[in-house]
Amino acid sequence: MRAEIIAVGSELLTPYRLDTNSLFLTSALNELGIRVVHKVVVGDSPDDMRSSFQHAMERAEVIVSSGGLGPTDDDRTRQTVSELLGRKLHTDEAVLRHIKERFQRFRPGRVMPEINARQALVPEGATVLPNPSGTAPGLWLESNGHVVILLPGVPNELRGLFETLVKPRLARIGGRLRLYTRDLRITGLPESEVETRVSPLYALYPDIETTILASPPGIQLHPSVWSDDPAKAEKLLDEIVDRMALALGESLYSMHGESLEEVLARILTENRATIAVAESCTGGLLAERLTNVAGSSVYFLGGVVCYSNELKSQLVNVPPGIIEAKGAVSPEVALALADGIRRVTGARLGIGVTGIAGPGGGTPEKPVGLVYIGIADEHGPRQKEFRFLGDRDRIRLFASQAALDMARRYFLAPTARS
Amino acid sequence: MRAEIIAVGSELLTPYRLDTNSLFLTSALNELGIRVVHKVVVGDSPDDMRSSFQHAMERAEVIVSSGGLGPTDDDRTRQTVSELLGRKLHTDEAVLRHIKERFQRFRPGRVMPEINARQALVPEGATVLPNPSGTAPGLWLESNGHVVILLPGVPNELRGLFETLVKPRLARIGGRLRLYTRDLRITGLPESEVETRVSPLYALYPDIETTILASPPGIQLHPSVWSDDPAKAEKLLDEIVDRMALALGESLYSMHGESLEEVLARILTENRATIAVAESCTGGLLAERLTNVAGSSVYFLGGVVCYSNELKSQLVNVPPGIIEAKGAVSPEVALALADGIRRVTGARLGIGVTGIAGPGGGTPEKPVGLVYIGIADEHGPRQKEFRFLGDRDRIRLFASQAALDMARRYFLAPTARS
Repeated sequence: MRAEIIAVGSELLTPYRLDTNSLFLTSALNELGIRVVHKVVVGDSPDDMRSSFQHAMERAEVIVSSGGLGPTDDDRTRQTVSELLGRKLHTDEAVLRHIKERFQRFRPGRVMPEINARQALVPEGATVLPNPSGTAPGLWLESNGHVVILLPGVPNELRGLFETLVKPRLARIGGRLRLYTRDLRITGLPESEVETRVSPLYALYPDIETTILASPPGIQLHPSVWSDDPAKAEKLLDEIVDRMALALGESLYSMHGESLEEVLARILTENRATIAVAESCTGGLLAERLTNVAGSSVYFLGGVVCYSNELKSQLVNVPPGIIEAKGAVSPEVALALADGIRRVTGARLGIGVTGIAGPGGGTPEKPVGLVYIGIADEHGPRQKEFRFLGDRDRIRLFASQAALDMARRYFLAPTARS
Repeated sequence: MRAEIIAVGSELLTPYRLDTNSLFLTSALNELGIRVVHKVVVGDSPDDMRSSFQHAMERAEVIVSSGGLGPTDDDRTRQTVSELLGRKLHTDEAVLRHIKERFQRFRPGRVMPEINARQALVPEGATVLPNPSGTAPGLWLESNGHVVILLPGVPNELRGLFETLVKPRLARIGGRLRLYTRDLRITGLPESEVETRVSPLYALYPDIETTILASPPGIQLHPSVWSDDPAKAEKLLDEIVDRMALALGESLYSMHGESLEEVLARILTENRATIAVAESCTGGLLAERLTNVAGSSVYFLGGVVCYSNELKSQLVNVPPGIIEAKGAVSPEVALALADGIRRVTGARLGIGVTGIAGPGGGTPEKPVGLVYIGIADEHGPRQKEFRFLGDRDRIRLFASQAALDMARRYFLAPTARS
């Protein structure tokens, strides 16, 4: 089965906003064995909307739209689709009651504005998909072998309705073919190198289609296969993922789409290890990434963002003489930051980052993008030099990634630490 | 004039990637007075592509496509559009030479693979738009009153070609109508309150269309007007923006689309003031935002991410007795963090943030989302209590926003500080 996704809303035709609902919808449709062949964004002009739905029905069996179900004049999805399918609109009393109740519950003393009664209009023969999180219900229509599903544009309402009411209905009418997929995450290798290492496998697994995505600061690999046999599909994916893992080695940090900070969080928790950071050029980004995982207080003791040289000495005990002799951006300062923050906080691991994020501050000897990262345990610190390309944001992002990755790899090689 | 944007590429029909080129293209087309009425994402199936271009030509005069100009079998934009317009493809010798030269320049010793010769195919009557940053040139075709512009999908190549070669051509054929727009940024007010305050202006300026966008953690207002008279349009926008500013008061922090951290950076620099932060629940995000502005080392001295109570006392001198008596999440600790980091770093302003980002750690008295933010200068600290709704990411984002905003507002009321 083929699907088309139509996002309705003039705001999606401005330079300010993208239709992100389609990512969720695509993933959910693929899991049901339905391929998305087309995505459309259309404003609230009835002509444009009509032509979009019409063309969609020429190309796909399943049409899912988001948006345009609100109470205002600009919300015309209901109307346009009813006209296109030749269905009359009538007021659904149950929907109207639900809307009135919501107004009373959430705005005590306020009655439903007359305008909202429009949201209770339902095309003949449509199935109402009651919306527990909003006033506009979803609508399910069938016509000449097509299924047209109208959903509200508010992401949590759309997701809720799709998961609870659309998915089971689509599963019943869909074929037995499903898309099975894996989500591998790689860091520290360029895209071309990932491609070179895994592409010999493509010929061995002709049924598997692998997408490679550069998603800075990392690379994603998505092997996927359409199949009517779940066990066979998973086995095939297990096989190729195992071989990909061998080809990628330590650069592969997740086989299930986790972020690097989630993986590191798990490793730190499993090892009952604590970590603390002293960062200069990443400006708090490293601490921020370590703490955006729920429960991070178990392993993250704290961090210092020491931009000024004084603070490096004052808070992390970097000897001022080292900064004077070697410069703030130097291997020696990275080592001192890592070891200093470890001692100050009593963490098992200390990470120190110093570098030049730019755009200013670079010299021929120490160009923008030069970053030193130190890592220290009870046996002392060691450090690595990196040269990142790109603008300030990119350099900071790649530096924080490299720091997280050094911490992850620390736990991969137990003998090297003893 | 009406435009449609077609993004070509099967990877854009996966759950992993959005077409972001369309935001740049929309902005650039609007500036030329061209309205975008439709956006489409299509895979590399020739049938789907053909129907997309065909329908686009029924709806719009200008069609801009991105992607599908690469050298592989899956890159079919050139072929499909030529067939649709009934044009033969021929090899353009100048383009072929450019491609061969690029291979020699960037991969010394390597000759152009035969497959890349496809990228030198040009439809009859098309204007070649030479691409200095890649192998695939852009193509400009005119047919029956339509302009069809084929651009590569790589963002910097697409932007470069559009700015230098497409814009001047479109400006010549376009009408004199242009879209003039402003970008107002608001924080600290909910969307409904912004709407209530500015909507009375809509009737006074019927030619101006205002879009209101909730873009967490803030609100954006985009008043815009189509006009053939630049001076008149700018004057009208000046007027409504002035009245919007009066209605919004201190909650309006930018009239030119700057981020809150950019605005604060400017204020701190103008006031020759320095700042330092001690944050708990925001975990480094506040420091990260303060330092993601180039040149932030002028005003940002440093920060401490003190997750553990020990570190709050050790690095920022929060008296352990206060934490014991009032709890780590308390007005008293926010005050002590702000004043402590100010004294430790010698900054003019100190900011302290403590709160519960969740998902765990909440109690009936101190629920998830409760955040105290302190701000201290030489006259001592003061603090504010916030209760943010949502998940961990949202609470951290809103807390960092509130902290930046308290610092911004500090400089708005000079008498209050003396």
